[in-house]
Amino acid sequence: MAKELKELTSRSKDYSQWYQDLVIKADLAENSAVRGCMVIKPYGFAIWEKMQRQLDDMFKETGHVNAYFPLFIPKSFLSREADHVEGFAKECAVVTHYRLKNAEDGSGVIVDPEAKLEEELVVRPTSETIIWSTYKNWIQSYRDLPILVNQWANVVRLGNAYSFVLAHATSEEAVAEAEKMIEVYARFAEDYMAMPVIKGVKSESERFAGAIDTYTIEALMQDGKALQSGTSHYLGQNFAKAFDVQFTDQNGNRDFVWATSWGVSTRLIGALIMTHSDDNGLVLPPKLAPYQVVIVPIYKNNEQLQQINEKVSGIVEKLKALGVSVKYDNADNKKPGWKFSEYELKGVPVRLAIGSRDLENNTIEVARRDTLAKDTVSCDQVEIYIKDLLDDIQKNIYKKAFDYRTSQIREVNSYDEFKIEIEKGGFLLCHWDGTAETEAKIKEDTKATVRCIPFEGDKTPGKCMVTGKPSAQRVIFARAY
Amino acid sequence: MAKELKELTSRSKDYSQWYQDLVIKADLAENSAVRGCMVIKPYGFAIWEKMQRQLDDMFKETGHVNAYFPLFIPKSFLSREADHVEGFAKECAVVTHYRLKNAEDGSGVIVDPEAKLEEELVVRPTSETIIWSTYKNWIQSYRDLPILVNQWANVVRLGNAYSFVLAHATSEEAVAEAEKMIEVYARFAEDYMAMPVIKGVKSESERFAGAIDTYTIEALMQDGKALQSGTSHYLGQNFAKAFDVQFTDQNGNRDFVWATSWGVSTRLIGALIMTHSDDNGLVLPPKLAPYQVVIVPIYKNNEQLQQINEKVSGIVEKLKALGVSVKYDNADNKKPGWKFSEYELKGVPVRLAIGSRDLENNTIEVARRDTLAKDTVSCDQVEIYIKDLLDDIQKNIYKKAFDYRTSQIREVNSYDEFKIEIEKGGFLLCHWDGTAETEAKIKEDTKATVRCIPFEGDKTPGKCMVTGKPSAQRVIFARAY
Repeated sequence: MAKELKELTSRSKDYSQWYQDLVIKADLAENSAVRGCMVIKPYGFAIWEKMQRQLDDMFKETGHVNAYFPLFIPKSFLSREADHVEGFAKECAVVTHYRLKNAEDGSGVIVDPEAKLEEELVVRPTSETIIWSTYKNWIQSYRDLPILVNQWANVVRLGNAYSFVLAHATSEEAVAEAEKMIEVYARFAEDYMAMPVIKGVKSESERFAGAIDTYTIEALMQDGKALQSGTSHYLGQNFAKAFDVQFTDQNGNRDFVWATSWGVSTRLIGALIMTHSDDNGLVLPPKLAPYQVVIVPIYKNNEQLQQINEKVSGIVEKLKALGVSVKYDNADNKKPGWKFSEYELKGVPVRLAIGSRDLENNTIEVARRDTLAKDTVSCDQVEIYIKDLLDDIQKNIYKKAFDYRTSQIREVNSYDEFKIEIEKGGFLLCHWDGTAETEAKIKEDTKATVRCIPFEGDKTPGKCMVTGKPSAQRVIFARAY
Repeated sequence: MAKELKELTSRSKDYSQWYQDLVIKADLAENSAVRGCMVIKPYGFAIWEKMQRQLDDMFKETGHVNAYFPLFIPKSFLSREADHVEGFAKECAVVTHYRLKNAEDGSGVIVDPEAKLEEELVVRPTSETIIWSTYKNWIQSYRDLPILVNQWANVVRLGNAYSFVLAHATSEEAVAEAEKMIEVYARFAEDYMAMPVIKGVKSESERFAGAIDTYTIEALMQDGKALQSGTSHYLGQNFAKAFDVQFTDQNGNRDFVWATSWGVSTRLIGALIMTHSDDNGLVLPPKLAPYQVVIVPIYKNNEQLQQINEKVSGIVEKLKALGVSVKYDNADNKKPGWKFSEYELKGVPVRLAIGSRDLENNTIEVARRDTLAKDTVSCDQVEIYIKDLLDDIQKNIYKKAFDYRTSQIREVNSYDEFKIEIEKGGFLLCHWDGTAETEAKIKEDTKATVRCIPFEGDKTPGKCMVTGKPSAQRVIFARAY
């Protein structure tokens, strides 16, 4: 049964519905029988694998290694966290038994009451507790530091975070690590996702719990809302103290280790979708597309198809030799028009179509997904044309996103103006007195938060738009996902 | 604190203790605070990553794609399996609650009794139930087949299996898939792990539950015991019937889909260790070593170190250009002798050492891990020498394992002889009448099982060594892990 290619809801009509339609119709993911848990379908997973492999390479280039920590954490481990949290209540999966058995009345499967665990286990909500208890045994002296270990944790749901917990011998080294990683994220976002980001530091209210500083990259989605796309944290010695992780320094003195942590998340897939896609479907950057080129034959009979197959196999070979990933879809049970819509929906950067007239003329039709422009070009050296075109698409979608963002960054100088402008979305550059009270008031009045205190740009001091108190520099406010 | 490099237990003294020592001392893995769950340390994980990436490439080359299925399965899903199993009792982690909270008396964290799940969830023991319930929605017609989806599931413990469940439109295609995958495994085992394997089909008793045929590759460890190193299963329509997954074929008729499944496991790390390693530590095949070459400088003062650093950086660059992975360990807080032992223990295939006399002579010392032989060679084009040496080591350790196995394959013609020979370990080629009863008797008497009915080799019929009944061909018996 051919899939129904119903229209997507348009972005202007209902942005959130457009996104949900797109996830389903482009075969990225679907709901599973377990509430809150999604099945990530092969096409969606292929995008994530591309992202993960690239990030993994970048992490390894910067000296990090991977390891694996257990999925289950004894309940008592979380008690240590609870000591620090008033009114602690943690949403997590609690494992209480280790066996199921047949009900005696034949009604199905029941939990075996005799198989109760002595201590309950928790499916790790974060890995901090187990990682620190492990590090404690790994760290004796400064020679054992730094520990630069990642874990690609299990994807429990879209939006799940990965945590990378690192231990350092000095404060300077820890700060440098946190700064370096936010640069790595920014490079990944801009060079691979073609998504412009603003680097900066979080306000105190928006910091990761327990962090001394949280660095962030912030992207702007097409609906004018911000999406935090990666964070790294300088944690000082707080965690080491909580878990009693000490080391002997070069002078023989005992000290607590200095910690950082950073994480990426499958939220990045959401960011990728929302940054570039349009009412026709996904638009993928060539560097992260599962396949960069699709070729569709247009034929009336089997003889024509054979001729086209032969022609195309030469083109495919040349494209692959240039490192271009390509799918030739000559499946006989779907019409070219159906295939065109399907690959447009799936955001394949370049679509080639070839028919019998093309064979005669030694030409091929080239359609680019980003602009939807079509062109007929010669088959001679078409592989080089396409390789260049992919580079061009990668740059063009970055530029488009960058220009959009530029149009949405506005300086705002009074709170009245702010209340009007925030309704239009975008990044608002404002003076703020740096207090949590003012930030809370703004959030309550307008739902906007400080996205970051940017590293770059205008550093001129001014006066807070709300209180009139001194402001060190303009910061970025927005409504956020 | 420098790690204590205590001697490993020797293999001849206690093979099992040798293995456990090696896992800990070579920094592969360690026990975690959760019983039965290990922490896989960076060096161990790097080996697994190499294996996984290579296998993933081979799976993709053969047309498979990856996806992600939820970690949690509703309890009722397992009831369907229970229908088929008398006295069903499943060891698995049962999630009953979704929240922890602080105890009111301040004694720590407790399970929130108000947060009981309506239906218990199970942390997937296998993914079959959730995968089939998902496929049911994906499959309408023959056009949706085959589904060739993998999942790299979460590593819960060393020895954990991955399952890949595939759906096909015809029986022939399903059988071909199962056969193809056992060939892929065999190629991976032999070409990458340098581990010779025997391909064959399992006896009925040793089949995967529900399979019509189970194909296997069997390797022989150094203690003479067999290790099943990969299996693929032709499942017929049994699973499709259990989960009611039907499709419309090309003629418009409804039929149940034909299924296969196959899996690899982190047991492969165990197989790798046990096949090649010796009383000095790990021996890794160059194709799977986290780094293939380590370079250790030998110097008396900082000036010498500077000169060596300079010389080595040229060599490192040339090695990397040839695709050789290399670690230069010029850390100042450990002595060369300590480093030599450490890298021997970790199985780095080639160790280079360079001192001031080498600088004068433009030479470098090359030590190979497999034979422990040392040689002093010229630095001119040393990168080509090493590239060739790595190829030679890969071949040599395969040959060594192959020769060992050859010496341990013996034809046995009477049950009395069998009982004596099985005590010596190895693969015994015997005639067997093909019945489960005889197999059970042999297992009870000797702990040996049919490892496989080999695809290759002598196909001459004979008489069962136990019952004297006809035997179609010799099969392989061994004691197994």
